[in-house]
Amino acid sequence: MHYSKSLEKLLAELEKLPGLGPKSAQRIAFHLLRATEEEAERLAEAILDARRKTSNCKICFNWTDGEVCQICADERRNPGEVMVVAEPRDLVAIEKTKEFKGRYHVLGGVISPLDGVTPEMLRVRELVERVSKGGIAEVILALNPTVEGNTTAIYLSGLIKPLGPKVTKIAQGLPIGGEMDYADMSTIISALEGRREM
Amino acid sequence: MHYSKSLEKLLAELEKLPGLGPKSAQRIAFHLLRATEEEAERLAEAILDARRKTSNCKICFNWTDGEVCQICADERRNPGEVMVVAEPRDLVAIEKTKEFKGRYHVLGGVISPLDGVTPEMLRVRELVERVSKGGIAEVILALNPTVEGNTTAIYLSGLIKPLGPKVTKIAQGLPIGGEMDYADMSTIISALEGRREM
Repeated sequence: MHYSKSLEKLLAELEKLPGLGPKSAQRIAFHLLRATEEEAERLAEAILDARRKTSNCKICFNWTDGEVCQICADERRNPGEVMVVAEPRDLVAIEKTKEFKGRYHVLGGVISPLDGVTPEMLRVRELVERVSKGGIAEVILALNPTVEGNTTAIYLSGLIKPLGPKVTKIAQGLPIGGEMDYADMSTIISALEGRREM
Repeated sequence: MHYSKSLEKLLAELEKLPGLGPKSAQRIAFHLLRATEEEAERLAEAILDARRKTSNCKICFNWTDGEVCQICADERRNPGEVMVVAEPRDLVAIEKTKEFKGRYHVLGGVISPLDGVTPEMLRVRELVERVSKGGIAEVILALNPTVEGNTTAIYLSGLIKPLGPKVTKIAQGLPIGGEMDYADMSTIISALEGRREM
């Protein structure tokens, strides 16, 4: 026991966060002890607020504070083009390029039998329902170029094409096995531009 | 605006923490949104609790939940040997070696004219008062082997030696310019063993 009890507890909670080891957790904990009480409160409140207020957009399942996310609520965005992504972080990566003016659909992951992720655990049914309502000319599959991502793309393509829309997949300009989330903007842009019909 | 308002706020607070960039902050934020509300509450509570309950030990200025830290309260620890460290994290690094059975004095930094840190901003007066009370046979200076650390060691030695105790400095087995906080245990142990009188 090198730490006081409350410090020990804080370290334990911090170490549960992704990417934080004992060293970085200690660095953050000591920073918080030194911070003003107000600063610590602001962080604690931001955590609670985000967790409590944020939910999934009723249309695309992006994170939102309301019923519908800012993108789905934006009438200037083309509802006829739907970009399917695995996670909200992929949506953020694409939004940063400012190249895409359509809407999104966040699957919540990709099909991965090894990890026990089946289509039923993703928002596949919701995507099919959304497409079935009509008005969607193109569904762009923007999944990571991994085995699971490609499997999911083929699976979704098989479900969606019979419903009418053109189904495209972003170009594999992304390094195979890599994560879109870490790609640079120009790689993402070229992948968007090079998308091909499936 | 790629994020909802509450998520944007959380990211801003997380990015203020040391060692967290936009990418790692985003990773943690998305983790927290996915976590159960209970998990988010536990983290928020641990932050507030640590900040509110933790204060500086009245004797050595280590972090503590009470008036006096666990080390100062431990009667098995030799009060005649006082190890002077810059920060609580250095105390933790030394405690992990289990080699030292005396007490500590946490300065709160080192003298650094370039950063505007003067002796008056550190717990130098408190150290002198503590030594003046008597009963301390040896003061071990365990400061980082940097210009500032060595300057502080010379300054403290000049103040303490006239008061009676032997003043030693841990061996510069630590790489020059390095941080004790990142040294491996055996390096710290050899530095403790090789300490020499000043």
